[in-house]
Amino acid sequence: MTTITLEAATQMIAATTAYGVEHGLKPLSVIVLDAGGHPIAFARANDTSPARYAIAHGKAYGAVMMGMSGTTLNTMAKERPEFITALNTALGGTVVPVQGGVLVKGADGKVIGAMGVTGDTSENDADAGQAGVIAAGFTPEI
Amino acid sequence: MTTITLEAATQMIAATTAYGVEHGLKPLSVIVLDAGGHPIAFARANDTSPARYAIAHGKAYGAVMMGMSGTTLNTMAKERPEFITALNTALGGTVVPVQGGVLVKGADGKVIGAMGVTGDTSENDADAGQAGVIAAGFTPEI
Amino acid sequence: MTTITLEAATQMIAATTAYGVEHGLKPLSVIVLDAGGHPIAFARANDTSPARYAIAHGKAYGAVMMGMSGTTLNTMAKERPEFITALNTALGGTVVPVQGGVLVKGADGKVIGAMGVTGDTSENDADAGQAGVIAAGFTPEI
Amino acid sequence: MTTITLEAATQMIAATTAYGVEHGLKPLSVIVLDAGGHPIAFARANDTSPARYAIAHGKAYGAVMMGMSGTTLNTMAKERPEFITALNTALGGTVVPVQGGVLVKGADGKVIGAMGVTGDTSENDADAGQAGVIAAGFTPEI
Repeated sequence: MTTITLEAATQMIAATTAYGVEHGLKPLSVIVLDAGGHPIAFARANDTSPARYAIAHGKAYGAVMMGMSGTTLNTMAKERPEFITALNTALGGTVVPVQGGVLVKGADGKVIGAMGVTGDTSENDADAGQAGVIAAGFTPEI
Repeated sequence: MTTITLEAATQMIAATTAYGVEHGLKPLSVIVLDAGGHPIAFARANDTSPARYAIAHGKAYGAVMMGMSGTTLNTMAKERPEFITALNTALGGTVVPVQGGVLVKGADGKVIGAMGVTGDTSENDADAGQAGVIAAGFTPEI
Repeated sequence: MTTITLEAATQMIAATTAYGVEHGLKPLSVIVLDAGGHPIAFARANDTSPARYAIAHGKAYGAVMMGMSGTTLNTMAKERPEFITALNTALGGTVVPVQGGVLVKGADGKVIGAMGVTGDTSENDADAGQAGVIAAGFTPEI
Repeated sequence: MTTITLEAATQMIAATTAYGVEHGLKPLSVIVLDAGGHPIAFARANDTSPARYAIAHGKAYGAVMMGMSGTTLNTMAKERPEFITALNTALGGTVVPVQGGVLVKGADGKVIGAMGVTGDTSENDADAGQAGVIAAGFTPEI
């Protein structure tokens, strides 16, 4: 299985942030997790709130642990709240089921990690993350 | 009291998985718990997400700890969310009250354990688990 | 990176158990975790205590999360208890730093998962696990 | 109050890592926390174990939350284990009281954050972190 190197994760964060600047988004904070849900790299934008780590992590963690994008998790959270609430608790209360959790897939289509992006609207967060994943040569699912 | 042996648990998992293959379901991950809610056996399907253990466990654990099937717990979670949320917290946050939690009963009708099945829709998970329990000579309640 | 399939994990558990029978050990319970510390397969021996899952998991989880064998973790726990106690707490209290946590390495020497074995003395647990890892064509570190 | 910008945190991580390379240390993983104990930036070295985030975070978090370096906390953990254990519990179980937690001070001597470094011996981790803090123009306390 392909793994995300620190260099690739750093590139993904830089490209996500650059997308945000180009499109006039609010400052973005970004995390990259490996296939097991463990952090590879994180960067919090200057002058943003202390919860940015928890939000970015929660978006990415839910995605990689479930193998579902933030968009899919968000739909599920609305349709089956009793499942997502229970899942979140079972996973230690760290899932944030909203857009901005972006699956990262390798050339064979397998999930190799996830990004979590936070700072602007959830939709814009997801779009920025998508750009970041593509910049590193991987396939995003937002 | 009849107990579920490791051999029976292994058979239940194999039959559940086989049901999934026969019916074209997505790959299923399956756990078998004893009457005290403790794991006997678990198998995660290849290339499925890391949360599969937590979900399978949560479905089975809720069933055996409450003596209620996943279907019953899911109905209760929708009708009395304040109770299921509190129950979940009291049980350490490990209950996933959805279909796919299958009670396993012995010849005298007593609960001797539970299966948790996850991978396809919750309804299909429950049907597959039902087939697995029957294959081992026990009585399921889905 | 090589990954451990369910078939390989099942083979590792069977070979570990067979080693125990051949050498007259007490019944062994065995777990196999992936590189991210998530369960692939578990089997609890008949008529063993409910904590077997927690012990097997804790041995394997400490090994894979730290990239160290149970033997190394056990030495560290004796020499630097303040570190291992804190590490254990930081990892959710699920590390059991004793022998029987066996690293599983692929052909390139990278850690691809871990086994946790429990039931006999910790030394014998580790030897049995070593045999199980080798049987599946991987390289153990006990 | 002086704050650590993302640019400064990134520089601190790069200089810490470079120190490790120059001195032949094992690959280092590094976190930078702000004065409130919240992550600014993190980087995990390639092919290091999943627990690196938890360890780096725990070293830095203990330092900044107590206003004490990892060396001081480690001495305290040995002399007054009942206090550090209780403190750790009170802080959510995330303090790792060993060397490699480095206080970051501004020109007026006030604590503005902390670094957590992990990968080699704790002493070497601390020395590398010291170099990283100095490189960014701040004053370290190891």
